[in-house]
Amino acid sequence: MVTLKQIREARSRLSGRINFTPIIESDWINQRLGGRVLFKAECLQKTGSFKIRGATNKILSLDPAQLENGVVAYSSGNHAQGVAAAASALGVSASIVIPQDAPPLKIENTRAYGAEVVLYQRNSESREQIAADIARENDAVIVPPYDDPAIIAGQGTIGLEILEQLDFVPDAVLCPCGGGGLVAGIATAIKSQHQSVDIFAVEPEGFDDTSRSLIAGERVKNDAGASSICDAIVTPTPGEITFEINRKLLHSGLVVSDRAVKQAVVEAFVRLKLVVEPGAAVGLAALLSGVYKLEGKSVVVILSGGNMDVETLAKFQRDLEPPAF
Amino acid sequence: MVTLKQIREARSRLSGRINFTPIIESDWINQRLGGRVLFKAECLQKTGSFKIRGATNKILSLDPAQLENGVVAYSSGNHAQGVAAAASALGVSASIVIPQDAPPLKIENTRAYGAEVVLYQRNSESREQIAADIARENDAVIVPPYDDPAIIAGQGTIGLEILEQLDFVPDAVLCPCGGGGLVAGIATAIKSQHQSVDIFAVEPEGFDDTSRSLIAGERVKNDAGASSICDAIVTPTPGEITFEINRKLLHSGLVVSDRAVKQAVVEAFVRLKLVVEPGAAVGLAALLSGVYKLEGKSVVVILSGGNMDVETLAKFQRDLEPPAF
Repeated sequence: MVTLKQIREARSRLSGRINFTPIIESDWINQRLGGRVLFKAECLQKTGSFKIRGATNKILSLDPAQLENGVVAYSSGNHAQGVAAAASALGVSASIVIPQDAPPLKIENTRAYGAEVVLYQRNSESREQIAADIARENDAVIVPPYDDPAIIAGQGTIGLEILEQLDFVPDAVLCPCGGGGLVAGIATAIKSQHQSVDIFAVEPEGFDDTSRSLIAGERVKNDAGASSICDAIVTPTPGEITFEINRKLLHSGLVVSDRAVKQAVVEAFVRLKLVVEPGAAVGLAALLSGVYKLEGKSVVVILSGGNMDVETLAKFQRDLEPPAF
Repeated sequence: MVTLKQIREARSRLSGRINFTPIIESDWINQRLGGRVLFKAECLQKTGSFKIRGATNKILSLDPAQLENGVVAYSSGNHAQGVAAAASALGVSASIVIPQDAPPLKIENTRAYGAEVVLYQRNSESREQIAADIARENDAVIVPPYDDPAIIAGQGTIGLEILEQLDFVPDAVLCPCGGGGLVAGIATAIKSQHQSVDIFAVEPEGFDDTSRSLIAGERVKNDAGASSICDAIVTPTPGEITFEINRKLLHSGLVVSDRAVKQAVVEAFVRLKLVVEPGAAVGLAALLSGVYKLEGKSVVVILSGGNMDVETLAKFQRDLEPPAF
């Protein structure tokens, strides 16, 4: 599994290579919801999401000889940029397998970091297979998106930062959840120091595999036909390693609608002055929609990324007429 | 005038009442411009702009007996919110005179902070006169937007924070300039400690009164018919006190087009993940448009506010097809 010690080692490795992201608070949101919300603004991280933490930690934990032929990753966008930027900063070549329908900004940025981009059809091809083929042909190393101890430990450094930034122990942490690496890392960092903190995995409707798996006690899958605006966290099923961690450490899952997510993205713009992409705004969506009741509590909300374009934001705002709540 | 000591006193007064805003950097912008840009993200300040600093310092520097009948302010929006929030936090009543064509979000927020809003016609009525009448009738105190030592000292606390946040002395600071209070305060804080730093007042075309006044050596006015998208910084002429400070401490002015400002607002969204309103994005506009050449330098850019709505951002993006540069 992953230990607090591994997360602390990851923190040392990452030091000076990533941003120590601020915690942002809004009097308006606190007053409206009747509690205290501490937003960990990981959208202000290098590459616009937390993914560079795990990617950098993974690459730095490998033997230099293993890296001679570069790294390979598959991703819907944020992990792609994270691996591309981490590899570039460390002088390692990278090939990234990205679905053809990923946000153009994410594809463009991955190329801008110097990575080779391989596009595939999300519904007819296996990205794992394509990545495995590239890795085998080139004798390169795969940097997986979540189901890997070094990746989880890297993402967990966010938990260490949060505890350092707050002068009190929060009641809960609301964390976006796709494959579960981010929430597993943060839960390990925080629960191993403060058992009292409830950690929630927040997921979009149709992709609530972790929420249902936590109830079932085993990994279940999402319906193949599901769709969501939360492109960053639409994974088919929890990871093996991440689920083993999350079943032990998480309180439960929370599930939010696309409409609540749109409202959260717009509120983040208007109230927090932050660009938060849909998959990263699910925690705020859970609060605003009342899926999680804040009243009287202090809750950390992870805003995990901000890779969104202006057109999408404007469309969300139009879709919300009249306002959701 | 205003001294470093007054700014340090303001900092003590403001401690715990405002946010210590982060400095954000973008690898993408640094690489593209060939230097280092440190963005002071004052858009993440309480009320969405720096104005709460000066307003809080002013109110706290008054005798409690003077505050019994409340405060009065006139503002196109950000100072309105700053005074309203500062007064509310300090238990003082506030009346705010706002032009009828100010952004609706700014008017709505001013009311939400509990202030009484008095709307006026920007072109046919004098806001100073309306505010003076209200103050006289109610025996209330005016909190002016910029031409006041306590206001300037409050805004200057940003300069102290910047020096504390950087582990080096930057080559220059690019600061938005309307009446000149923000740049006067920051210049006083920084130049009194590091003479080598060049401070620039950045203004929109048509409202380059400070730029031209610095050249003329005396306060000049803008043409009455000028218009700009930078609603936060469209003042008719430099303040008396602010100009006395700025003529001694500033390097010069920089003037940017509305088109460059639109591009800067969009780039702040895409690259920095920050919501930066037009009047607050003029420093970034000066860099992106080449009005200020960054090459090889380290420059602090003040992003002074983020009170903008989604529709305006979307319109800017549409107006930029094809891109400006």
